[in-house]
Amino acid sequence: MWGGRFAEGPSAIMREINASIPFDKALWRQDIAASKAHVAMLAAQGIVSADDARAISEGLDRVAAEYEVNGVPENLDLEDIHMATESRLAALIGPAAGRLHTARSRNDQVATDFRLWVREACDQIDAGLEDLQRALVGRAEEHAGSVMPGFTHLQAAQPVTLGHHLLAYYEMLRRDRSRFADARTRMDECPLGSAALAGTGFPIDRDATAQALGFARPTANSLDAVSDRDFAIDYLQAAAQCALHLSRLAEELILWASQPFGFVRLPDALSTGSSIMPQKKNPDAAELVRGHAGRIVGCLTSLMVTMKGLPLAYSKDMQDDKPPVFEAHGLIALSIAAMTGMVTDATFRTDRMRAAAELGYATATDLADRLVRHADVPFREAHHITGAAVKLAESRGVALDALSLAELQAVDPRIDAAVHEALSVDASVAARASYGGTAPLRVREQVAAARKALGMES
Amino acid sequence: MWGGRFAEGPSAIMREINASIPFDKALWRQDIAASKAHVAMLAAQGIVSADDARAISEGLDRVAAEYEVNGVPENLDLEDIHMATESRLAALIGPAAGRLHTARSRNDQVATDFRLWVREACDQIDAGLEDLQRALVGRAEEHAGSVMPGFTHLQAAQPVTLGHHLLAYYEMLRRDRSRFADARTRMDECPLGSAALAGTGFPIDRDATAQALGFARPTANSLDAVSDRDFAIDYLQAAAQCALHLSRLAEELILWASQPFGFVRLPDALSTGSSIMPQKKNPDAAELVRGHAGRIVGCLTSLMVTMKGLPLAYSKDMQDDKPPVFEAHGLIALSIAAMTGMVTDATFRTDRMRAAAELGYATATDLADRLVRHADVPFREAHHITGAAVKLAESRGVALDALSLAELQAVDPRIDAAVHEALSVDASVAARASYGGTAPLRVREQVAAARKALGMES
Amino acid sequence: MWGGRFAEGPSAIMREINASIPFDKALWRQDIAASKAHVAMLAAQGIVSADDARAISEGLDRVAAEYEVNGVPENLDLEDIHMATESRLAALIGPAAGRLHTARSRNDQVATDFRLWVREACDQIDAGLEDLQRALVGRAEEHAGSVMPGFTHLQAAQPVTLGHHLLAYYEMLRRDRSRFADARTRMDECPLGSAALAGTGFPIDRDATAQALGFARPTANSLDAVSDRDFAIDYLQAAAQCALHLSRLAEELILWASQPFGFVRLPDALSTGSSIMPQKKNPDAAELVRGHAGRIVGCLTSLMVTMKGLPLAYSKDMQDDKPPVFEAHGLIALSIAAMTGMVTDATFRTDRMRAAAELGYATATDLADRLVRHADVPFREAHHITGAAVKLAESRGVALDALSLAELQAVDPRIDAAVHEALSVDASVAARASYGGTAPLRVREQVAAARKALGMES
Amino acid sequence: MWGGRFAEGPSAIMREINASIPFDKALWRQDIAASKAHVAMLAAQGIVSADDARAISEGLDRVAAEYEVNGVPENLDLEDIHMATESRLAALIGPAAGRLHTARSRNDQVATDFRLWVREACDQIDAGLEDLQRALVGRAEEHAGSVMPGFTHLQAAQPVTLGHHLLAYYEMLRRDRSRFADARTRMDECPLGSAALAGTGFPIDRDATAQALGFARPTANSLDAVSDRDFAIDYLQAAAQCALHLSRLAEELILWASQPFGFVRLPDALSTGSSIMPQKKNPDAAELVRGHAGRIVGCLTSLMVTMKGLPLAYSKDMQDDKPPVFEAHGLIALSIAAMTGMVTDATFRTDRMRAAAELGYATATDLADRLVRHADVPFREAHHITGAAVKLAESRGVALDALSLAELQAVDPRIDAAVHEALSVDASVAARASYGGTAPLRVREQVAAARKALGMES
Repeated sequence: MWGGRFAEGPSAIMREINASIPFDKALWRQDIAASKAHVAMLAAQGIVSADDARAISEGLDRVAAEYEVNGVPENLDLEDIHMATESRLAALIGPAAGRLHTARSRNDQVATDFRLWVREACDQIDAGLEDLQRALVGRAEEHAGSVMPGFTHLQAAQPVTLGHHLLAYYEMLRRDRSRFADARTRMDECPLGSAALAGTGFPIDRDATAQALGFARPTANSLDAVSDRDFAIDYLQAAAQCALHLSRLAEELILWASQPFGFVRLPDALSTGSSIMPQKKNPDAAELVRGHAGRIVGCLTSLMVTMKGLPLAYSKDMQDDKPPVFEAHGLIALSIAAMTGMVTDATFRTDRMRAAAELGYATATDLADRLVRHADVPFREAHHITGAAVKLAESRGVALDALSLAELQAVDPRIDAAVHEALSVDASVAARASYGGTAPLRVREQVAAARKALGMES
Repeated sequence: MWGGRFAEGPSAIMREINASIPFDKALWRQDIAASKAHVAMLAAQGIVSADDARAISEGLDRVAAEYEVNGVPENLDLEDIHMATESRLAALIGPAAGRLHTARSRNDQVATDFRLWVREACDQIDAGLEDLQRALVGRAEEHAGSVMPGFTHLQAAQPVTLGHHLLAYYEMLRRDRSRFADARTRMDECPLGSAALAGTGFPIDRDATAQALGFARPTANSLDAVSDRDFAIDYLQAAAQCALHLSRLAEELILWASQPFGFVRLPDALSTGSSIMPQKKNPDAAELVRGHAGRIVGCLTSLMVTMKGLPLAYSKDMQDDKPPVFEAHGLIALSIAAMTGMVTDATFRTDRMRAAAELGYATATDLADRLVRHADVPFREAHHITGAAVKLAESRGVALDALSLAELQAVDPRIDAAVHEALSVDASVAARASYGGTAPLRVREQVAAARKALGMES
Repeated sequence: MWGGRFAEGPSAIMREINASIPFDKALWRQDIAASKAHVAMLAAQGIVSADDARAISEGLDRVAAEYEVNGVPENLDLEDIHMATESRLAALIGPAAGRLHTARSRNDQVATDFRLWVREACDQIDAGLEDLQRALVGRAEEHAGSVMPGFTHLQAAQPVTLGHHLLAYYEMLRRDRSRFADARTRMDECPLGSAALAGTGFPIDRDATAQALGFARPTANSLDAVSDRDFAIDYLQAAAQCALHLSRLAEELILWASQPFGFVRLPDALSTGSSIMPQKKNPDAAELVRGHAGRIVGCLTSLMVTMKGLPLAYSKDMQDDKPPVFEAHGLIALSIAAMTGMVTDATFRTDRMRAAAELGYATATDLADRLVRHADVPFREAHHITGAAVKLAESRGVALDALSLAELQAVDPRIDAAVHEALSVDASVAARASYGGTAPLRVREQVAAARKALGMES
Repeated sequence: MWGGRFAEGPSAIMREINASIPFDKALWRQDIAASKAHVAMLAAQGIVSADDARAISEGLDRVAAEYEVNGVPENLDLEDIHMATESRLAALIGPAAGRLHTARSRNDQVATDFRLWVREACDQIDAGLEDLQRALVGRAEEHAGSVMPGFTHLQAAQPVTLGHHLLAYYEMLRRDRSRFADARTRMDECPLGSAALAGTGFPIDRDATAQALGFARPTANSLDAVSDRDFAIDYLQAAAQCALHLSRLAEELILWASQPFGFVRLPDALSTGSSIMPQKKNPDAAELVRGHAGRIVGCLTSLMVTMKGLPLAYSKDMQDDKPPVFEAHGLIALSIAAMTGMVTDATFRTDRMRAAAELGYATATDLADRLVRHADVPFREAHHITGAAVKLAESRGVALDALSLAELQAVDPRIDAAVHEALSVDASVAARASYGGTAPLRVREQVAAARKALGMES
């Protein structure tokens, strides 16, 4: 395929290191679509004849039909999906196939195919994330008033509602979706027609191919267009952040499913047993979601390192762009699906959550706040008083609200009779009604806003 | 500062591992601003008295004035910039200082301060990138018609213009700026008032503080607000991509400054000599820009790994968010400035570039294209014919256009008399006039568009 | 310092990006030592006079004494520690100072200084890890018979002993120490005398300088010697693995310190409180150790990316070798010290550990094993029978050993009367007496072996 | 396979996320070997009968024979290679198959299989690296006296010999081999018999299985044994450093193959052409080797991130250990093979190398050294004088040795008549005869030492 330039054929090692067909065959749909758009434009511009264009376009449809049924053959001699398709096209329609490669190069061809693939990957992930958001919002609504301990440093800090906790992930995913959307907007330019690196002397119409392939516009600089893999890194960066969010939720589900916490029963369908310990029910899906975050960060690192310090324009190093993107996409898509299943079908053990919230002095801040608001004590002093009360309760091995008013007033006489009411977990969460706060009222408002944003039936 | 809860003080190791004041003192301006916005809101809502608020606000101004003059003292016992400032405020104005911390926590305070800092960092980088774009556009205009070899695989591929090459980087930086802009938009929500994790029972007005600090809106979920470091990762991801682009330009400048290439003389002011080799002039600034890409990728990795698998809400691990962001910001800002200097003051040796373009059979594609267009040869066949011509020239040790017409027609009789004209580098670049192509005409159009986008005087 | 080659001085940006003195001043002791070894060798070889050598050596001692008292001045014009020291030496002893740089270059000088520094860093970490191992072994001995739940998937799996659990970390640290030792052995070659890149024409004695600086031998290839930063990456790789181990122990301490687990009380001296929640006692030191793993992985990534694709010999990118190593060393040293404090002073709540082990059907495997051993049931079948027994107990909400013999025999008649004895956690751990197993007997053997390996008093 | 514990089967998503058989089938040889060693030990210890053991062992041989011929079936319901093999064994020999899993768990089984695999991977890489070293040494011997420019900062610095340059890579690979050897030594402990996490109550003989599988000893702590993936990270770290070395050599080959350098012609068998530019001969294999460094660093990052913060003992996240190791191994093995081919068959264009060395004032240091040695000028002053001479030559556009003696003496009268001799590149390299220096004499000594170390025929 490289003309008469070489005395010897590529060696066995070269075949193996050089061929990308084992992975870039995943681009076959994009490659066919881009070739069809290209040849239609060539015909419209009078660069190839209408007959040749028709033969090529129909031939490409036949190749596509073959791929659909039998898959793409992995012939290492044909190197990549572009040569595989062109070779098959030539076998089907003869020499006219050679005209398809007029005014393009594999450099702009692969840049176009891969952008199309990544753009679609963004759309798939967006749809998956929307499903997961819906699942979170549904469960948040159900548990807008379910009290659980809110943790900082994994220490019980203040009571919160489970609905509020689940909506925190709704927010993270909202940012994730905006990241994929930004990436998609930024990549929405068509490299086709940039040719090898310099553009072409043929009178092509790049707006036409860009439009046919659904791009907003053609790329503005041909050297950049064939050297650029920003779109793939954008995708991987969005995927990495999303995977980190999912790893946090996975960590929480694993913690909550442990016997000491006991806050959740994960669905059987997303758990496994042990080959040796008959009693085990393991949160495997959550662990794999957490583990996959590592691999997705690794995929991002991979492509960033590969691109570092490459001179313009195309270098063959850039062939290593696709494996990390394909791998990361499979992992993040599966992680989102698994998490959606877990969120939808988890059984939250709200009794145990409430019990845990009632232990651990989680309403101590409420006592401090009360001193500030009702006795005009500066916060730092109120904090100190409450610390002394906690210390007393702890030394006695009881909850804070098990201390009598007399005992509390011995700590500080400004503590008043209504204090015990403030120390209940329900009062605590209801009180935190600032915008974005954990009060059930606020959570329900956020649920309503989320339902609206997601277009969910009310 | 933690009240009466602890029997012993923190040990020496704890002081050292726990204190963030050595680095988070960089946030002092943001911390003062956020505290002033907070206390003004507390007063407006009647949560603190007007007198206390005035005392606090004026006290904060005095602290700021001290920091401005003397820097922030690094007292490890005061842990962080928040405690350092509050402690100094208390020394200046007495117990009223304690009311400042009403209805907030260090968790929402640091999230707010750091967002303010990162938002400003985005603005700084955007300004730096705009300067670098202007420098590129200026040099591109100057060299819209300067011919150089375009490389793929670092092999001469086709002649291009230097202006076209420089504008490829303009495009990369355009995407970089859009990435920082996207990050800035996404982070433009104010966490203040989220308190420790659950919101607060005080009747605060979060819209007021958000507005006072220039945020578009308050964050919608308090648990998310104190757990979230997406904005820092967004910044680092944008910085990493930008650093990769700069590393590519740096690589090219280093190559071009080498004796074998000799395409550029870098400014003395951004080069160094050798302590042992008197003749050396080293492209140190370019090498450091390339090297810094490694460190910036490392900073991004650092924060992604740190955030992986953290349960909600705030965990102390998140204190490790600031060093990588501060480090990456310093490195990328300096890299952009150094690159702006190099692009502005480099002496491009256009004679050597042109000579290199004329060697290396870089116009072979033009011969192939000519066969397609004038003799209706399918491209793949034309490619084969041209390969044979190159092989002949190479075996004779001459340039392609040094072959006579007879010799060329012996390769293929369809090669016509006008062929030599097509093989000149000027004809080659002028021919590639497709949109985004390297033709001087197109380059000048892109320069004009860029000048307009940058608001440069025409 | 670069002779008469340059028309202009370095610009302000260049001063800032180019100067390494703000960080490489940390190498001053190594730089002085290497210079003293070098000049002593030059004199012994007759390359400089004895008088000059004495003046230089005494002058270096004076510079060192100044640095010791006042620190190293950060004069960006002097770029780096080598020029700073040579400049100060010249001020002290006059032109003879210029002879010190005979037969060396900053390239071999910095490679030597940095190796000396990293070699010492390995020794420091080894000492720290040995202390932490001693702490682990001491607590393991104390808790050789303390029963706790062993987890897989964070689900109670089988009872283990706390001593056994702690010794797992002893093993990890044993490997970590071997990694630092391997790195140290590999880096134990002296680059001094490699000069800029090619060696020197002066009749130097590289064995003498290598020996004077405590290296096993001089490096064998001068180009490699000045281009190589493997030793720094070796150090960072060892540090990264060690940090990952510490992150696992930190995660466990954080889990164990949470209220639902309640397995440990961390020392007050390594915990903090909350500025807003008076009851909190946060495991900050453990969280920071966990977080630091992220930063150390980031440091490793940084240097690997920086070194990727650099041509030989020295490139200025390599100046970015020191910040990640210095940062990682500070973080890992502090992490080890903090962890040693936590392990030494933690209060293990063995009552809660035992109670947790007795719940969760952790001895179900013991029932299955018993069926295999006493009733000759194939393991897979025994596993199935036990699963049914667990399901029965779970449906009744009781522990496995709360089922009566009749109930168990209804599941499978081969279950015999002695079964309840096998289901106790003490019997379970005592039974697992295979080599490396959790039986207290085995743990005590491993403690004894560890004490011997560490040279601890018996 | 998990007994009677679950009400529902795993869902489709779970099957896909949970099953490791698509990749861990690569472990089938190790899995069979470990099972055979295990059952032989069980029989020797009287834990299973001789008849059962024979049936199992012969059955395993039959399964292995099937796998050899037909590959391992990818039945996702059987999850992993262990269950696939055990299931097939049961189909072949009946219920006795169930006895194989006595006294082991999938946790110790996979740890053993994977160690065996990685240990063999180390051996394969070592053999590949030895081949590449031999290739380097052979070419170094051939070019012990071939002069080329030695670069620092990619600027011609001093003349060196090509043999010396190639031996720099011999040294890097020597360290790489020691890293794989260290990793192999450290991983040479057998986890089998650690069971799920706690050891076993069966009277197993772990020394016997360790010995049968060629391990130095059994692991000392069962919790560590099933939680540890250090060996995989050790492998990846060694591979990453090796890949970085190869990326540097690849970068140089790409540079050297460019037209401006023209130092090398790469073998046709490891190059490719262009689909659009008929004259191109691209160094694809070298570019792919350089690009693969990115992916291998990504693989290392992946596993480090995955392991961060995992509590003991086994967590399912650890299933993500194998894909990065398998990927990195394939990439590094292929990179080494491709590089061996390039080094062996490259045509070094020594004429162009010599010509480049003679330009660029690369012998300026020799002039400075001469002033030090023959005129007793302090080095710093000699450096300054030489700088002035270079500046004069540069302003005249001539080489340094084209300046007349009178002109040179006008710069400094201490320059003597023999100076021109010192300025030849051959004299320059011959002079640098310090140990490790570039003098052909020294290069030949290093070649001889390397040949001896490699056991090459002399």
